[in-house]
Amino acid sequence: MVKAAVLGSTGYAGAELVRILSGHPDAEIVYLASHSYAGKKFSDIYPGMRCVCDMTLSDDDIPKATENADVLFMALPAGIASEAVTPELLEKCVVIDLGADFRLHDAKIYEAWYRKEHKHPELLDEAVYGLPEIHRESIKGKKLIANPGCYTTCTILTLYPLIKAGLIDTSTIVIDAKSGTSGAGRGEKLGSMFCEVNESIKAYGVTNHRHTPEIEQELSLASGEDIVLQFTPHLVPMNRGILSCCYAKLKKGVSEADVRSAYGMYSDEPFIRVSDDLPETKYVKGTNMVDISFRIDGRTGNIVAIGAIDNLVKGAAGQAVQNMNIAFGLDETAGLMTAAGPAF
Amino acid sequence: MVKAAVLGSTGYAGAELVRILSGHPDAEIVYLASHSYAGKKFSDIYPGMRCVCDMTLSDDDIPKATENADVLFMALPAGIASEAVTPELLEKCVVIDLGADFRLHDAKIYEAWYRKEHKHPELLDEAVYGLPEIHRESIKGKKLIANPGCYTTCTILTLYPLIKAGLIDTSTIVIDAKSGTSGAGRGEKLGSMFCEVNESIKAYGVTNHRHTPEIEQELSLASGEDIVLQFTPHLVPMNRGILSCCYAKLKKGVSEADVRSAYGMYSDEPFIRVSDDLPETKYVKGTNMVDISFRIDGRTGNIVAIGAIDNLVKGAAGQAVQNMNIAFGLDETAGLMTAAGPAF
Amino acid sequence: MVKAAVLGSTGYAGAELVRILSGHPDAEIVYLASHSYAGKKFSDIYPGMRCVCDMTLSDDDIPKATENADVLFMALPAGIASEAVTPELLEKCVVIDLGADFRLHDAKIYEAWYRKEHKHPELLDEAVYGLPEIHRESIKGKKLIANPGCYTTCTILTLYPLIKAGLIDTSTIVIDAKSGTSGAGRGEKLGSMFCEVNESIKAYGVTNHRHTPEIEQELSLASGEDIVLQFTPHLVPMNRGILSCCYAKLKKGVSEADVRSAYGMYSDEPFIRVSDDLPETKYVKGTNMVDISFRIDGRTGNIVAIGAIDNLVKGAAGQAVQNMNIAFGLDETAGLMTAAGPAF
Amino acid sequence: MVKAAVLGSTGYAGAELVRILSGHPDAEIVYLASHSYAGKKFSDIYPGMRCVCDMTLSDDDIPKATENADVLFMALPAGIASEAVTPELLEKCVVIDLGADFRLHDAKIYEAWYRKEHKHPELLDEAVYGLPEIHRESIKGKKLIANPGCYTTCTILTLYPLIKAGLIDTSTIVIDAKSGTSGAGRGEKLGSMFCEVNESIKAYGVTNHRHTPEIEQELSLASGEDIVLQFTPHLVPMNRGILSCCYAKLKKGVSEADVRSAYGMYSDEPFIRVSDDLPETKYVKGTNMVDISFRIDGRTGNIVAIGAIDNLVKGAAGQAVQNMNIAFGLDETAGLMTAAGPAF
Repeated sequence: MVKAAVLGSTGYAGAELVRILSGHPDAEIVYLASHSYAGKKFSDIYPGMRCVCDMTLSDDDIPKATENADVLFMALPAGIASEAVTPELLEKCVVIDLGADFRLHDAKIYEAWYRKEHKHPELLDEAVYGLPEIHRESIKGKKLIANPGCYTTCTILTLYPLIKAGLIDTSTIVIDAKSGTSGAGRGEKLGSMFCEVNESIKAYGVTNHRHTPEIEQELSLASGEDIVLQFTPHLVPMNRGILSCCYAKLKKGVSEADVRSAYGMYSDEPFIRVSDDLPETKYVKGTNMVDISFRIDGRTGNIVAIGAIDNLVKGAAGQAVQNMNIAFGLDETAGLMTAAGPAF
Repeated sequence: MVKAAVLGSTGYAGAELVRILSGHPDAEIVYLASHSYAGKKFSDIYPGMRCVCDMTLSDDDIPKATENADVLFMALPAGIASEAVTPELLEKCVVIDLGADFRLHDAKIYEAWYRKEHKHPELLDEAVYGLPEIHRESIKGKKLIANPGCYTTCTILTLYPLIKAGLIDTSTIVIDAKSGTSGAGRGEKLGSMFCEVNESIKAYGVTNHRHTPEIEQELSLASGEDIVLQFTPHLVPMNRGILSCCYAKLKKGVSEADVRSAYGMYSDEPFIRVSDDLPETKYVKGTNMVDISFRIDGRTGNIVAIGAIDNLVKGAAGQAVQNMNIAFGLDETAGLMTAAGPAF
Repeated sequence: MVKAAVLGSTGYAGAELVRILSGHPDAEIVYLASHSYAGKKFSDIYPGMRCVCDMTLSDDDIPKATENADVLFMALPAGIASEAVTPELLEKCVVIDLGADFRLHDAKIYEAWYRKEHKHPELLDEAVYGLPEIHRESIKGKKLIANPGCYTTCTILTLYPLIKAGLIDTSTIVIDAKSGTSGAGRGEKLGSMFCEVNESIKAYGVTNHRHTPEIEQELSLASGEDIVLQFTPHLVPMNRGILSCCYAKLKKGVSEADVRSAYGMYSDEPFIRVSDDLPETKYVKGTNMVDISFRIDGRTGNIVAIGAIDNLVKGAAGQAVQNMNIAFGLDETAGLMTAAGPAF
Repeated sequence: MVKAAVLGSTGYAGAELVRILSGHPDAEIVYLASHSYAGKKFSDIYPGMRCVCDMTLSDDDIPKATENADVLFMALPAGIASEAVTPELLEKCVVIDLGADFRLHDAKIYEAWYRKEHKHPELLDEAVYGLPEIHRESIKGKKLIANPGCYTTCTILTLYPLIKAGLIDTSTIVIDAKSGTSGAGRGEKLGSMFCEVNESIKAYGVTNHRHTPEIEQELSLASGEDIVLQFTPHLVPMNRGILSCCYAKLKKGVSEADVRSAYGMYSDEPFIRVSDDLPETKYVKGTNMVDISFRIDGRTGNIVAIGAIDNLVKGAAGQAVQNMNIAFGLDETAGLMTAAGPAF
């Protein structure tokens, strides 16, 4: 049994992680921390977990957390992990950071987009970007796994095959993404109130959302050249789900068969379903699946590639467990094969 | 492995059953039928189940369905099961009927509320009302299990201990229940359209909802006298969940301790959580759990007892699997221990 | 033109008041105050009102607010109005308080349910309970109008005719009410967050909600005897609307004709529609209407009477304007005749 | 008083038209037709309109409808108006068609996208594309007004100034639009059921949605050259609202001041609000307003221009009334100045 500690366990991503780990056949939770609710039981905060996880919440005490843990999950606001993770910690256990601090390889880009100093830039080399479908082999030996963002997971996996195969003009990429409200976290803010979100849709972070450089980094690596792209997220009145609608000009002569062939790289992936049917977020709700489909527009010369994930599962906690499974040599799908409900 | 056939597999309850059976460690699906979609794959209708259940849908052909099946689940409109179930069928396999045809012991009451003739009233004696927390022992030997309705499961389990212990004046019972929209089924009707349901709440079936006699039957059995009660369902703009708010005058001298003691009958039940915290349907969403709480009002002399379930799980498919588990001597919780998500 | 000042104008009820007053043919806004947003424009906070009301928000300065105002609307938390309203203020202008401070005639009952001291109990005699359909004549001469609560407006109007006509056993009243989330206000609290409210329903304030004594006061006045009743509110995942489902035993010999005759008292009311069709909150959304219907249950001897309002209009701002219209001798429906949208 | 007849009055757009006309100071409804509900009262179908519009619904009988009408509104499925509108009808009254039949100037393009023959292509020259902010002067003298589509209204008004001023590379236009579910109409189809729409988002009509040629026609007229563009609509779990997010490369040297100057063309428009704040559909809900904002991305060289409307008001019924006001020389804003509620 892999022994797991979770910091930030009462945020939405953290709690989803607790839910998944609670049903994992080869892992057990040994420590749950919550800055806000230390001393209470996890199931006091999430009564749906009564009789499933009634563990008492502790403080964010990393030495205690890692006393008996093989893996430390950190689901914390930006800036905290980069201060807390040290070479000593990495000797003790595997760290899977659900935050943004170790995702960008270049500390300067981090500091430009997150507007805060990175406290351990020297550790960036130790970190692997934990997107298994692209970096599976590198994840295996690493002690520090930077779990990708939600928009980024969905978008990178949707566009990667097209770029890797050199099928699109990378100067024309436009990504129009939509997210459920859990992506905004459990913090009490006006913009997340029911009456403010319900019955409305809006774009936000236009031209400056922090997931932009993360998408650019990974797609640039695939491309071999520096990609700059347009990314626009939207807030949708639903709890969970991300839909990423990606546009680009196809290069001259690229056929539908070329595109299908490129997506063939995913044919053995347990969590990616490429289909002719357009994705809907309800089909991946509660699962670690990525649904992808595309259309080629003969009139405009564009490809429209669309991906869907559950932002809290493949976009956060599920992918973190997938990374844990890989890092510890478990079956990659262990604890993650829940199907979506009957269309909702 | 218990071999299961499902009729009506593409309705919401049927599909939830497919979802649960797909993850069940000791059961396998051998036959799926759908009146509307025979010939297609189950996952064409529910793309969220692609790679999980891609079985081809067959016709409602009971002989074929039961050729290799140990258990036949019927998730069909009222009136069909009572015609299709025969003594010969019951010799071949266990039948678990998710519909209403075998729930009421008295065919006349069935005919009065459902306004159709019962085709096999002589089989009503063979049937057991499949509410395990009350009839567990009787379920074990039976070949015909009448799976209870959604409102009824929630309401009966909430009120049963109070009545069994003789704590309330049964002539004063008022049940005000609320359901998510999946309870109305997958049929295309105006009243189930998004714009008609969203942003509104209404009562329906006031004084004449068909779940009334089912609740009265079971509570009368508990009481030993004929109970007549008020039941009012409401439609709520959400997909899943039932909340049943039950009111009654406490008998003179009944104390809070008496009430707690009565609910103590559930202390070993794996799927019932009695708590001081008021239930919210999100806490049971996707699970087979029943959450129950109560308040005694010293001013009015009433008890207010509130129960919550997921209408498609404990209110339909989950309970059907629980019944299967009991009937086949499996662990009663097998395949049913999914926890609710982080509060949604 | 009646000159109006509004305190608490950026809460949901206050903002709805600004919306209605902005379209009122015989009123104009002269002062808008907001504790949180003083200095900003109203339309900065509610961009939907740009080009409609761009007035700058002021502090809660009552002398300034009433310098040029004929009427002062107070949409403030409990406890503030009872301190701010003085005999001197009432000489200067009419005060319409949307809060609870002057609704209960007995300061002790106020203090017991609101757990705070009432600062001007001597003014309670000056106040009228501003429910026009019941107290229209008394409203005309008063300077201090206590605008009723949302649940209370809906519930009192639904039950009043039955009690006034002596048709029900008042010891058996059970009120099961449901409200949209705007009723919880615009304050940032966890329980009002989108992901906490969406896809769930719950009861709250069971046996102790503060609207209870207000309903009891008005129904006791109608009855001539002290009524104690059961009131249970629920939170529904929608923005607006209240549905109040009221149960009571009919007295012996009461016929459906008697009930119809009792509701006949509303036949000339411009804002009450009694109908055979069960109410749905969408039909009153955005309007000052009250929809009422009832069913008599021959089996149980109960009447089930159901009312629906928009909690922010008839349950708050619309009724406040209706009170203003009466107090200033305007057409009672002025500024209030907006119809609901096409069913949503 | 302008006398109005409405065909298709019980669809969502038709009913919204009835609602607006019912409150219009200078118009009165003289005839309401409904294919499905002839013989019933309008308020039987839309109980929210009881006491506001209780007119009896008639058949789709154009001679009767136009006996006393000055204007005939047609809110009917594609293909019906093009058959029903004749030169004789246009002599009798002004026709405002909310459908698609007279929007495209070229019958061949209509037939290619709608896959049906156009029955009166010779009348296309008589028709004006009823987008007042662009074609106001032409609307004045015309008898046949083709009311624009919902997506198209929002998108054309958002992009028009940029194209008219020659600021963008028109070969790079990508439009990612999102609509509430009322846009799918009141017909009973699986894809519009509550449980299918709620808690999910999807794209549809990718590369082939019928509003594409309508947008291209109007923007091509603005540009003077043939524009081909990418248009992708999405279904959002909300009742009303369209958000249109438009992307294009800015031409070299175009500054933010140039863009502001271009949008200055709307400075006197009563229904367009250009703002620095990003639009949210809730701010235009229930109103005839268009909210527009833009961002220039120095990194990519793109402009992101975003518009929002209520699909049933400015996207259908409100714009139809605006067209009526213009055609009959009334104040263009008559009956249309309702403000949105407090943010929802």
